[in-house]
Amino acid sequence: MTEFELFAVDLAREAARVSLPYFRGAYEEIDKGGPGAFDPVTQADREAEAAIRRLIEARYPDHGVIGEEYGEDRPDAEHVWILDPIDGTRAFIAGLPLWTNLIALRTGGRPTVGVIGQPYLDEIFIGGPSGARMLKGGAETPLATRPCERLTDAVIATTDPDLFTGAELGSWTQVRAAARLARLGCDAYAYAMLAAGRIDLVVESQLKVWDWSALVPVIEAAGGEVTNWRGETPDGSGQILAVGDVRIREQALVTLRRSSL
Amino acid sequence: MTEFELFAVDLAREAARVSLPYFRGAYEEIDKGGPGAFDPVTQADREAEAAIRRLIEARYPDHGVIGEEYGEDRPDAEHVWILDPIDGTRAFIAGLPLWTNLIALRTGGRPTVGVIGQPYLDEIFIGGPSGARMLKGGAETPLATRPCERLTDAVIATTDPDLFTGAELGSWTQVRAAARLARLGCDAYAYAMLAAGRIDLVVESQLKVWDWSALVPVIEAAGGEVTNWRGETPDGSGQILAVGDVRIREQALVTLRRSSL
Repeated sequence: MTEFELFAVDLAREAARVSLPYFRGAYEEIDKGGPGAFDPVTQADREAEAAIRRLIEARYPDHGVIGEEYGEDRPDAEHVWILDPIDGTRAFIAGLPLWTNLIALRTGGRPTVGVIGQPYLDEIFIGGPSGARMLKGGAETPLATRPCERLTDAVIATTDPDLFTGAELGSWTQVRAAARLARLGCDAYAYAMLAAGRIDLVVESQLKVWDWSALVPVIEAAGGEVTNWRGETPDGSGQILAVGDVRIREQALVTLRRSSL
Repeated sequence: MTEFELFAVDLAREAARVSLPYFRGAYEEIDKGGPGAFDPVTQADREAEAAIRRLIEARYPDHGVIGEEYGEDRPDAEHVWILDPIDGTRAFIAGLPLWTNLIALRTGGRPTVGVIGQPYLDEIFIGGPSGARMLKGGAETPLATRPCERLTDAVIATTDPDLFTGAELGSWTQVRAAARLARLGCDAYAYAMLAAGRIDLVVESQLKVWDWSALVPVIEAAGGEVTNWRGETPDGSGQILAVGDVRIREQALVTLRRSSL
């Protein structure tokens, strides 16, 4: 692995060390969403991000950092670390082991290294210049997306159809109707399973830059692609489409383009 | 633990031994649903149930068995084992570690021992006359539901709102709107988290006897209750409501009763 890939793994292990002890334990939880918009954040989210930021600051003080909990430092630097210390805070709260630590390195404007870590499962999915692999219990398994020629053969996923608004929901319903099987409730873990060749397509909206940046290098290095709902580079629209086999992308985009932002 | 509780744990370990090697591996999969009704079953489902049935037949040849994959033997016996070798076959197929092995013992018409096992997590949730506990890596943790006085404070779950038909969907939408947080996609694992005090309410429909029987002793021994959507003993309606604290049951039933079967 490259220097930055190895460091990203170190960051994931630090995030795991800090966040895992709170899982199914006692921790502070506050609602940062305000009335009618429940948006939970826990002590685990905050302490994990603070710990990661300390390691970055010590090792690469000129790198930028963008994190969900503590905002932006030097966001225009050549190298910027983009952090979602706990993606799937709702899963974390409900005791479900599908929350993840998301860590990305953006270099020259593009995500070049990504990590999806699930501490309770002892799984780290890492993608970058040297390839894509899963680390678990000292073992390394290469990650590769699988062939899927037709949407009707696809296993697809989204976290929660309630996150789709207006025309988006109709698009999701049509894509789901075409697919072989749909799974809900996975948060970023769905993208890890796409990189591992178990899920063929993930479609979501309202994703922030820290929700999707880490996924891109993992999926690309495994053979898949990540775009917005127009088939272009992910952007501020928050609409993300990830496929393991590009042949099904056009079939999904026929529907998704109609509700693209 | 009682003799039957210990035997139920043995059965769960056998189900794990047979099913886990297929997870994220290669296996036969067939669709038993017919046109327009995808209902997957894998080699792992079938071999796990066959293995459990062999152990029951050898140890308690006069006991009955009801299993999802291989039907009924002596279903009117005093002791009947009720098996769903892999609950959440769709999660299994998608590589998600929330599928479970479900094993129940029905005695005199009521589920008296239940096991929810998740082999990839090395977790066995067991409930019966001697209490409710989670077994993991040689350690035992007692299970207890948590207090939850109001539905507005509740973490709730269902597997997939698409499984609700007609008026059921409206009821779910109302219960969800009242709750603090909803999770989707958990299959029977949601009930394990209810017994562990992390989820407060689970509501589902279209459940078969092998989907819900194992949950009842686990949840009851942990301090919760399982009923149909009228607040009565679970029956052939397939509508299940599980609560960790009975005070929120009436609040949910106000809505659910309107679409009860």
